[in-house]
Amino acid sequence: MDGAPHTPASPLAADLERLAAFSAGGNGVTRLAWSPELKAAYAWFAGRCADEGMRAEVDAAGNLVARWGPEDGPAVVMGSHMDSVPEGGWFDGQLGVLGGLEAVRLLRAWGVEPARPVWVVAFMDEENTRFNTALFGSRAFCGEDVTGLGGRVDADGVTLAEAMHGWDRDIAEAGSARRIDQVGDYLELHIEQGPRLAASGAQIGVVTGIVAMAGYRVRVAGEPNHAGTTPMDARRDALAAAARMTLAIREEGRSRPEHTTNVGVLTVESASSNVIPGACAFTIDLRAPGDDRIEELDAACRERLGAIAREEDVEIELESVYRMPAVPMDAHLRSLIEGAARDEEASVMTLSSGAGHDAMVLGRYVPTAMVFVPSRDGVSHSPAEFTTADDCRLGAQVLARVVKALVEDPPSQIARRAATIESTPTD
Amino acid sequence: MDGAPHTPASPLAADLERLAAFSAGGNGVTRLAWSPELKAAYAWFAGRCADEGMRAEVDAAGNLVARWGPEDGPAVVMGSHMDSVPEGGWFDGQLGVLGGLEAVRLLRAWGVEPARPVWVVAFMDEENTRFNTALFGSRAFCGEDVTGLGGRVDADGVTLAEAMHGWDRDIAEAGSARRIDQVGDYLELHIEQGPRLAASGAQIGVVTGIVAMAGYRVRVAGEPNHAGTTPMDARRDALAAAARMTLAIREEGRSRPEHTTNVGVLTVESASSNVIPGACAFTIDLRAPGDDRIEELDAACRERLGAIAREEDVEIELESVYRMPAVPMDAHLRSLIEGAARDEEASVMTLSSGAGHDAMVLGRYVPTAMVFVPSRDGVSHSPAEFTTADDCRLGAQVLARVVKALVEDPPSQIARRAATIESTPTD
Repeated sequence: MDGAPHTPASPLAADLERLAAFSAGGNGVTRLAWSPELKAAYAWFAGRCADEGMRAEVDAAGNLVARWGPEDGPAVVMGSHMDSVPEGGWFDGQLGVLGGLEAVRLLRAWGVEPARPVWVVAFMDEENTRFNTALFGSRAFCGEDVTGLGGRVDADGVTLAEAMHGWDRDIAEAGSARRIDQVGDYLELHIEQGPRLAASGAQIGVVTGIVAMAGYRVRVAGEPNHAGTTPMDARRDALAAAARMTLAIREEGRSRPEHTTNVGVLTVESASSNVIPGACAFTIDLRAPGDDRIEELDAACRERLGAIAREEDVEIELESVYRMPAVPMDAHLRSLIEGAARDEEASVMTLSSGAGHDAMVLGRYVPTAMVFVPSRDGVSHSPAEFTTADDCRLGAQVLARVVKALVEDPPSQIARRAATIESTPTD
Repeated sequence: MDGAPHTPASPLAADLERLAAFSAGGNGVTRLAWSPELKAAYAWFAGRCADEGMRAEVDAAGNLVARWGPEDGPAVVMGSHMDSVPEGGWFDGQLGVLGGLEAVRLLRAWGVEPARPVWVVAFMDEENTRFNTALFGSRAFCGEDVTGLGGRVDADGVTLAEAMHGWDRDIAEAGSARRIDQVGDYLELHIEQGPRLAASGAQIGVVTGIVAMAGYRVRVAGEPNHAGTTPMDARRDALAAAARMTLAIREEGRSRPEHTTNVGVLTVESASSNVIPGACAFTIDLRAPGDDRIEELDAACRERLGAIAREEDVEIELESVYRMPAVPMDAHLRSLIEGAARDEEASVMTLSSGAGHDAMVLGRYVPTAMVFVPSRDGVSHSPAEFTTADDCRLGAQVLARVVKALVEDPPSQIARRAATIESTPTD
C-alpha cells in the first residue's frame, strides 16, 4: 500500500444504478446515440461532474467533456461512452465514464492538486447501433473527418444530420470537436466483455493491445431449383456451400490461440423450404493479436473459401467491410496500471482486448491504456451483463492511482509523451 | 403405330403462349391463386373449352371443371392447375390443363364418341404460394374439409375468405365442390421439373409414384455473445451447429439413391456481424420413394441432429410441419401410358415424382397416373422453365390415347376401378 488515503464506500454503484434509469424501455438499458435518453443522461451526468467542481460541456460531435484542474498542459483523459446497444447492460461504456468521475472524487478526497488538466469524456456513438457510424465521437475528437456521415439513416429513416439537429448540433461543424492536441494520455476503464478474468479469478485486467480486425461480407451464388425433383448430385446448393465455409472459418479461428473468427449474419435469398438455396450472404469477422497475424488468418480463410467454392461449383464474392490494424497499449501506462493494482493488492491478468473501444481510436494518437474488470460469465450487450460493485470500485481506484501518478510528476510524463508521439502513427 | 388418325400441328403451343399473357407482371408468369389474373385466365379457358363442345363451370372451391361426353358414368378426369408461383414459367400446371383440352380436341378429331364422361379440371391453388393452402382445390374436390382455412392471410393481409368473396365464392360452401364420387380415373400431364428425362434423352416419363415427404422446422438455441471477446473454445454458436446439421442432412440424402433432402430456409435471430449467433431456425424437407424409406431417412436425420446438438452444447427443437405418405400410381393406367408412348414411337423412362401434384391428392381416392415431359435443364418455378412444343404435343397425344382406351371399353375399366377403390385408403 502506498500513501493514498482510504475512502468510504464509493457512490459509483449508486451512479451506475441511477444512469441505468435513462433508457428507452424494454429489458436492460436502451440508450442509443443521439437519443433523448442519452441527452437526459448527459444532463444528469454534467450535474454530477459539477458537484465535483468540474466544468462539463457537450462538444460539436456530441462528446460530453468534463474538465478538472488547470486549463493548460497536456490533459490526462479518462473516458468511454454512455450510448448503449438496444437492450444492453448497465456497465458497457458507462463504467468508464462514471469510473472516471469516481476517480476524480477519489483524487479530491486524497487531496491531489493536479498539475495537469484531468478530463472525463463520454464519447458519442461508440456502439455503432443506430447509424452505422461506429466511434463517431472519438474519431471527431481525434480530428478525423466525420462530416461526410450526415446522410446515414437509422431504422426509422432519420438521418444522422437530422438527429444531430435535435441536439442543436450541425454535422458540418463536427470538425471543431478536435481536441486531441490538448491530450497527453488516455485511460479507459471497461468491463472485459469476455470470460477470461472471471474464469481466472483475476480482479484487474491490464490490456496489452486491441486486436487487429478484418470484416467481410460474402455472397455465394449457386442455382435455385426444386428440392424434390433435382437429384442430390445435380445441385449447386448455396447454403450447403456457405455452411461448409462457416465451419472452415471456425476451424481457422480455433486453430490459432488468441484469435477469433465469427460468422454472425447469414441469409438465404428467396428462401423456401422446397427450393434449393440459390444464393446466400454472410458476414465474416476476424480478429488477431497483431497485424501480421490478421494477415495470416485472413489469407487462410480466403484460401479455404475459394477451395470450397470450387468444390461446390458456386460463385463467391468477398467484399471487405472493415480492416483495422492492432492498437498496442502504451507500455508506461500499462506499468502504472500494474503498479496501482499491486498497491490495491488486486490480482492482475494481462490480456488483449478482442473488442473495439474508443481507446482503439485514441491509441493511434496518444499514449493509451485500458483497465479491464471482470464480466460475470463473460456476458455483455445483454441485460445480464454484470460486474460486482467491488470490482467496479476497484477499477476506479486503479484508475485514480494511475492519474495521481501522472498529474503529480507532470514534467517527466510530458517529456515521455512527446517521445512517444514521435513514434506513433497518426493515420 | 395404331389406327389413331393423325392431325395437323396442334393449337396447344398457341394456347400455352396465350395463357402466359394472363399474368400480374414481372418476369415469367405470376398468376396466384384467387387472383384477378387467374379469373381472367379461367374465363378465356372456358371459352376454349366451349369451342370443343365442353360445358365449363367454376365450382365452389375455385376449380374450373369442363365436361365432355355423357353425364353419367365414372368420369375420366385430366387435369392439373393454372395458378403459378410468383415469376414462374409457362408450363408448370398449365400444360396439364391445356394438354387435357388438346387431348379432347384430338379425340374429337379421331371421331371418338366417349362412352364415359371426360372432364378437364384446373384445380385451385396447387402452388401454396399465396395462402399456405396447398392443393386447396383438389382436396375440396376429393371431399376433404377445407372450410377451416378461410382465415389464412396473404402477404397483403387479405384472408382466403375475402379473396374467395372476390370470386363470389363462400368458403363455408366449399364442401359442395366434392365430386370425387363421380370420378373413375385421374390423369395428369406435367413437366418433370427435374433433369432426368432431359439428361437421358427420354421423351415421356411414366411416373411410378409420388414420393413420401416429411417437413420440419428446427430451432437451435446456443448463447449469443461478443464475437471478439469470447474465446473460440467457450462458445455455443447456434449457426455453426446449424451449419453442421445442414451438411449432415445433405449427407443423409446423398447416401440414398432416389432420396432428396433440403435445408431451404435458414435464419439467424438477432444477427449481427460481431455477435456469436445465439439462435437459428431452419427448415428440413425430406423425400423418399416409399413410406418405409422416409421413416428410415427421417430417423437417420433426427439422430444426426441430436448428436450434433450434444456435441455443440446447443438446444434443439424439431417441429413437424408436414408428413405425406407416398402415393403410388395405378399400375393399369401406367401400362396404358407405356402402350400409348410406344404407339407414338416415343422413348420412355419410368421415374418417381419428387414434387407434389394434384395427383398426390386424387391418387388417394381413385386410380391415378401421371405423364411427365422433359424440362430443359430441369429448371422449374422460374421464367426459364421450358419444354419444347414437340414434347408438349407428344404428352397430349399420349394422354389422348390413354383416354381413348379408357372411354372405348367402359365396362372393363369400370369393373377394374371398383376393384381398385376397394384397396385404396381413403384418408
